[in-house]
Amino acid sequence: MSTLAEKKATLTSLLKGLKKVTVAFSGGIDSTLVLKMALNVLGKENVVAVVANSELFTDEEFDKAVSLAEELGANVQTTTLDYLSDEHIKQNTPDSWYFAKKMFYDRLNDLATANGSNAVLDGMIKNDENDYRPGLKARTEAGARSLLQEADFFKVDVRALAQELGLTNWNKVASCSVSSRFPYNTTLTHENIAQVMAAEKYLRSLGFPTVRVRFHEDIARIELPEARIGDFLVFNDRVNRQLQSLGFRYVTLDLGGFRSGRMNDTLTKQQVEAFA
Amino acid sequence: MSTLAEKKATLTSLLKGLKKVTVAFSGGIDSTLVLKMALNVLGKENVVAVVANSELFTDEEFDKAVSLAEELGANVQTTTLDYLSDEHIKQNTPDSWYFAKKMFYDRLNDLATANGSNAVLDGMIKNDENDYRPGLKARTEAGARSLLQEADFFKVDVRALAQELGLTNWNKVASCSVSSRFPYNTTLTHENIAQVMAAEKYLRSLGFPTVRVRFHEDIARIELPEARIGDFLVFNDRVNRQLQSLGFRYVTLDLGGFRSGRMNDTLTKQQVEAFA
Amino acid sequence: MSTLAEKKATLTSLLKGLKKVTVAFSGGIDSTLVLKMALNVLGKENVVAVVANSELFTDEEFDKAVSLAEELGANVQTTTLDYLSDEHIKQNTPDSWYFAKKMFYDRLNDLATANGSNAVLDGMIKNDENDYRPGLKARTEAGARSLLQEADFFKVDVRALAQELGLTNWNKVASCSVSSRFPYNTTLTHENIAQVMAAEKYLRSLGFPTVRVRFHEDIARIELPEARIGDFLVFNDRVNRQLQSLGFRYVTLDLGGFRSGRMNDTLTKQQVEAFA
Amino acid sequence: MSTLAEKKATLTSLLKGLKKVTVAFSGGIDSTLVLKMALNVLGKENVVAVVANSELFTDEEFDKAVSLAEELGANVQTTTLDYLSDEHIKQNTPDSWYFAKKMFYDRLNDLATANGSNAVLDGMIKNDENDYRPGLKARTEAGARSLLQEADFFKVDVRALAQELGLTNWNKVASCSVSSRFPYNTTLTHENIAQVMAAEKYLRSLGFPTVRVRFHEDIARIELPEARIGDFLVFNDRVNRQLQSLGFRYVTLDLGGFRSGRMNDTLTKQQVEAFA
Amino acid sequence: MSTLAEKKATLTSLLKGLKKVTVAFSGGIDSTLVLKMALNVLGKENVVAVVANSELFTDEEFDKAVSLAEELGANVQTTTLDYLSDEHIKQNTPDSWYFAKKMFYDRLNDLATANGSNAVLDGMIKNDENDYRPGLKARTEAGARSLLQEADFFKVDVRALAQELGLTNWNKVASCSVSSRFPYNTTLTHENIAQVMAAEKYLRSLGFPTVRVRFHEDIARIELPEARIGDFLVFNDRVNRQLQSLGFRYVTLDLGGFRSGRMNDTLTKQQVEAFA
Amino acid sequence: MSTLAEKKATLTSLLKGLKKVTVAFSGGIDSTLVLKMALNVLGKENVVAVVANSELFTDEEFDKAVSLAEELGANVQTTTLDYLSDEHIKQNTPDSWYFAKKMFYDRLNDLATANGSNAVLDGMIKNDENDYRPGLKARTEAGARSLLQEADFFKVDVRALAQELGLTNWNKVASCSVSSRFPYNTTLTHENIAQVMAAEKYLRSLGFPTVRVRFHEDIARIELPEARIGDFLVFNDRVNRQLQSLGFRYVTLDLGGFRSGRMNDTLTKQQVEAFA
Repeated sequence: MSTLAEKKATLTSLLKGLKKVTVAFSGGIDSTLVLKMALNVLGKENVVAVVANSELFTDEEFDKAVSLAEELGANVQTTTLDYLSDEHIKQNTPDSWYFAKKMFYDRLNDLATANGSNAVLDGMIKNDENDYRPGLKARTEAGARSLLQEADFFKVDVRALAQELGLTNWNKVASCSVSSRFPYNTTLTHENIAQVMAAEKYLRSLGFPTVRVRFHEDIARIELPEARIGDFLVFNDRVNRQLQSLGFRYVTLDLGGFRSGRMNDTLTKQQVEAFA
Repeated sequence: MSTLAEKKATLTSLLKGLKKVTVAFSGGIDSTLVLKMALNVLGKENVVAVVANSELFTDEEFDKAVSLAEELGANVQTTTLDYLSDEHIKQNTPDSWYFAKKMFYDRLNDLATANGSNAVLDGMIKNDENDYRPGLKARTEAGARSLLQEADFFKVDVRALAQELGLTNWNKVASCSVSSRFPYNTTLTHENIAQVMAAEKYLRSLGFPTVRVRFHEDIARIELPEARIGDFLVFNDRVNRQLQSLGFRYVTLDLGGFRSGRMNDTLTKQQVEAFA
Repeated sequence: MSTLAEKKATLTSLLKGLKKVTVAFSGGIDSTLVLKMALNVLGKENVVAVVANSELFTDEEFDKAVSLAEELGANVQTTTLDYLSDEHIKQNTPDSWYFAKKMFYDRLNDLATANGSNAVLDGMIKNDENDYRPGLKARTEAGARSLLQEADFFKVDVRALAQELGLTNWNKVASCSVSSRFPYNTTLTHENIAQVMAAEKYLRSLGFPTVRVRFHEDIARIELPEARIGDFLVFNDRVNRQLQSLGFRYVTLDLGGFRSGRMNDTLTKQQVEAFA
Repeated sequence: MSTLAEKKATLTSLLKGLKKVTVAFSGGIDSTLVLKMALNVLGKENVVAVVANSELFTDEEFDKAVSLAEELGANVQTTTLDYLSDEHIKQNTPDSWYFAKKMFYDRLNDLATANGSNAVLDGMIKNDENDYRPGLKARTEAGARSLLQEADFFKVDVRALAQELGLTNWNKVASCSVSSRFPYNTTLTHENIAQVMAAEKYLRSLGFPTVRVRFHEDIARIELPEARIGDFLVFNDRVNRQLQSLGFRYVTLDLGGFRSGRMNDTLTKQQVEAFA
Repeated sequence: MSTLAEKKATLTSLLKGLKKVTVAFSGGIDSTLVLKMALNVLGKENVVAVVANSELFTDEEFDKAVSLAEELGANVQTTTLDYLSDEHIKQNTPDSWYFAKKMFYDRLNDLATANGSNAVLDGMIKNDENDYRPGLKARTEAGARSLLQEADFFKVDVRALAQELGLTNWNKVASCSVSSRFPYNTTLTHENIAQVMAAEKYLRSLGFPTVRVRFHEDIARIELPEARIGDFLVFNDRVNRQLQSLGFRYVTLDLGGFRSGRMNDTLTKQQVEAFA
Repeated sequence: MSTLAEKKATLTSLLKGLKKVTVAFSGGIDSTLVLKMALNVLGKENVVAVVANSELFTDEEFDKAVSLAEELGANVQTTTLDYLSDEHIKQNTPDSWYFAKKMFYDRLNDLATANGSNAVLDGMIKNDENDYRPGLKARTEAGARSLLQEADFFKVDVRALAQELGLTNWNKVASCSVSSRFPYNTTLTHENIAQVMAAEKYLRSLGFPTVRVRFHEDIARIELPEARIGDFLVFNDRVNRQLQSLGFRYVTLDLGGFRSGRMNDTLTKQQVEAFA
């Protein structure tokens, strides 16, 4: 197993060989490291940071990613993906995530071609290799590059190199597609997505950053970390009224608390990062 | 408007004229008064108290009604109604309550005929006349008698006469058909009824006498008085596990709290009393 | 010390001697006992139960007292007292209670004269003799009679005789003038009284029967039994909005909880009973 | 199975045969019924109600029992038992309850002899026959009589006869020896008993009638009904300080909540009633 | 719009031109950036960091600001302002903030003159230009310089440059004058300021960093973030006793929770920073 | 008093003189600074970071320290200490900490000798000199060096130099020997240590990082920060069952909340750091 210095050297060498790159930037620590290294090695003029927007992810995440990329000194390009135009995604099929990633990488390729980049880079690392294959499949089919994987970076290496480079600011909250709030095979619409998004935004504004509003037609099922349920009591009535005004008939709290992937449409982390 | 003494005299006279009666006894204050007066006026040998059992009402209510009738010194006869054999009730149609009451009164008539009674008496009072007509319709079609209505008893009169007669023990909790836990047009089955009954029984055993478990297929939606939600916190996990073991996938608490008739299948009080 | 039987005999004898009486009826156990004994001894035609209404006491208490008197079979007369017409009461002076009692007994005397009664009876008992003198003073000046005191009834005797007479229904909640919600020397107005009354009524409707809303101009200071403060959390926001809509700018909860007489304008129990 | 009327007749007959009796009166419904029947059948002059006091039971219970007996119109005699003078009780052995009951019945016999009674009566009923044998053994050895058992009274019969007799007031809270707060074989002393008694009295004064303070030397382990633990939060600090001032070093709340008999020194109900 | 590099260059150039400066240092990110840049550009010997102390701000803030300045390697000078000597501030008039800022800048000018500085620098940025004019007015009248405004720094630029310079430690909690705890035109005294300060310090020590104790003569009105009110329950009694010992008669919790500026004496952020 | 630059120079000089060192690394900020400086001054090949493992400290702390040392680029050596082999430690005597530290330093000396180091370095600073003497005694007897003390570093200096060196990642939670969970003179065993460790690990996993499970034979006494007790309610039952399954009979919450050193076996901070 090579040292951090060796891994950093490999990464640097890979970047140099590509000369000009487009980085799929989500704002998380992994893609932040890729972008920073690309900027350091190739210079600002040879790096484009693409931040994708869509109705499946929050505007806050998008805005924060754009702002983080600017703080790193990158040229930022934004793009909007119309995920619902794909029938698999719209019908929320169990394999919809493959199609979402495919659309994502295809768009990145188009943008890279247009701006003269020689590669699309994402932030996947070695730890992501254990996750669902379809995520890797979409990337590989699209020909995108995960340089951190190629240079053998595990999470511990990412953190060590981030420290060495003085990186201290990134999006600590794991991103997650809003499709995870719907049971499989529930048709996603602009309306029900907006309904869930507005509900979660309201709950975050009350001081509950980790929250899910699961959509069961006329029932909203809220998942909160159990240790916050007591704190939430004081907001029960307001949340009931607000979410009813958004179109839910019954507004409920799941007694089992928050657990990621509770809809079984467990999008994996790399999917999620790729999406954003 | 006549005085209590006059109303009591009218009631006594009506009872005397009937000579032998069958009382539909639910354990509530109204039918307790009817039964007590019938016993006082006609003697134990000329009064049969019928307590109905069915899967739409709890065994506890049934047991308590039987026990209360025995404490009053009545001859008690029990009967079991198979409500699900009626398609309207089984499909939980909006008008199912009429058919439930019809089955109830028909059974009472059969029992009265068999034991030689000259009338079936129930506990409806003047205040009940403002309720849904179909309840009164089923009673009238069956020829059952509501002597308290006939003698002009309002709730205030019922309480005053109960005090005068030294009655102190009756079922204070309003009875309610379990069908109210299901949305209209959801098919009632032995299984889903038992599921809801077991769930509510468990919650009552934890110290929450006023509680509803609304059935939404894989979701249980619990309604509690809002002022008890804080007390309930300590049981969240146990309730989640227990109700999941009963077959629900998601166990939730309605943030709007308990409100009777929240399913819109608002059975009226007289229906409900008639059922039991 | 005489036995209950002896005390009852004394009471009966005193009543007989009065022939026709007017009972100041509040609905509490003490005046309920006086009224019941008067009815038993003198007959309905020789007893008038007067229930007083005023803006210093709730309409619910008044209505309940009227209803209780009717259940006992009494002739009920109602009367309305305009307490604010007295400057001491209006300015909420420390001695305002004497003037309130005086107005109360004067009115009772007027009514008794008009209906031909030979005495005004109230419900004060031996235990009340230890309380503030001014209460007794107003009664004595007005010539009203406290037969339970005269017949040597302590609270234990009242309960024993009530049991013997089969009395089971009376107002268990101690009545209390709304003036106790205002600091001394704050001018009472129809508006600020209505504001406090509406605030407390709202809080009772949420399931908090024991509650005080203390009036400090733009601040409402709510006193609740401490063990209910946790249950109250879920209503915080609604109470804040509702009481602001009633005219308070800041709606607060006293961290010390409910303690009677916290304004120091501790009206004594006999005052209070006399008022209602 | 005989009717209530037949059982009442048997009981009446048994009482008549005894002519003069001493009733061990705890204030519970059972011994209240025995005392009331004895008074009705034999007259006040032939009935002595004995209420026992001791440091193993609260003064409140004793006072309430005395007051209840007086309300029933009985001649009341009080007696104080020095349970700690018995080594089995003092050492809190698993069989200590037998010795406590023995001391209790022996004392009752002494008092009955002195006042010329022909029998000592207690309140045990048929349901109690399923309980621990040693309770019955002590009674039988002492020759005391359980007339309700002899007349075949079950709990349902007790309640029905109480209603018929107009009894409405008795001690609803089950009494329980303070020895149950100590692990077996912990030596009971005046000091540690007083410590536990004062701790529980304080907790009851805060509004928690059902509470146990288990004694584990320097640790107080409080058991509360789980649904009250949230309400208790507001008192945590005060309870901690108050119980420390009583001599406990650590004041703790049992996360399992209140369960009777959690020390395994489960005194049975009849023991308990016999004690008081 | 210029780039961060250009803005940094402008800032550097402005600093160089001033040769020797006095920085009004509050410990917030803005003045931290100004101080760090001044140190880098002009050297430690040409920079004086002044930290102001007064009874309107907490000692903790003052101590922390001094410590932060020392960690940055600056020469630190402290000064104490007697704000109550100004009648506008003492009477808490709506325009008192202008006079507070004026006193602050005048003092800074005096110190700068004494230490040979060519300018007084504060930390105001472009975003502050939208705030209340009187803040800017006092600064401009005093001739103090806001170099971050002059070099076109918005908040995003401040954070980016702080990251570039490796700054990671500053006071994240927004400072706020204690005068905001008093209604307008309530006279501030050493006593009532100390009372509020001690009350808030106590509450912070319990684990509630965001808290306001509003002063309404004999009433303390506590504002807490709503999501913390449940956590606060356990401290209710202690807070009640502690704040009463500080001189409040009634200690209350605002049901509306914490909202900055609830007294309407909304000091703006730049005022506040300027104060400290 | 010398400046930070002077102190850093002193530290650098001391390190240079030692040529090759073994650093006792706990993961806290102090030993992190020592290790980083040693690496900078002497190079990776002349520094060994020793991380000690034992059953008195958690595996998580050990793992985190190893990971932190690796992120700093150090050669890491781990060693396991069998503290229970010392009778003083096993019997949890009040002076057991001296013997624990002695064992710790002796082991470090053995390892340093084996790897050719010229000194064992720990992280003690000037502030630690005020703590218990026995800690310093063990260090001095073993001949270990506290270079930060020698170079006059106080906590403020440590933080300033850490910032200068870009250090941002260390273990913020103060380490504490599990022996503090046992009363003095309670025999520590592998079993009861594992019982407490598992209990605390479970509680941390629920979201309560600051928690102590005090061992009182069959009673577990949990200490939590008071402001978290409300949040804990929802876990009461699970914690009760889980800790019972670990061997406790009664699982209790201390009403006094968390206070370090509540067992009186207050190990000092330097002891603790030395242990790990």
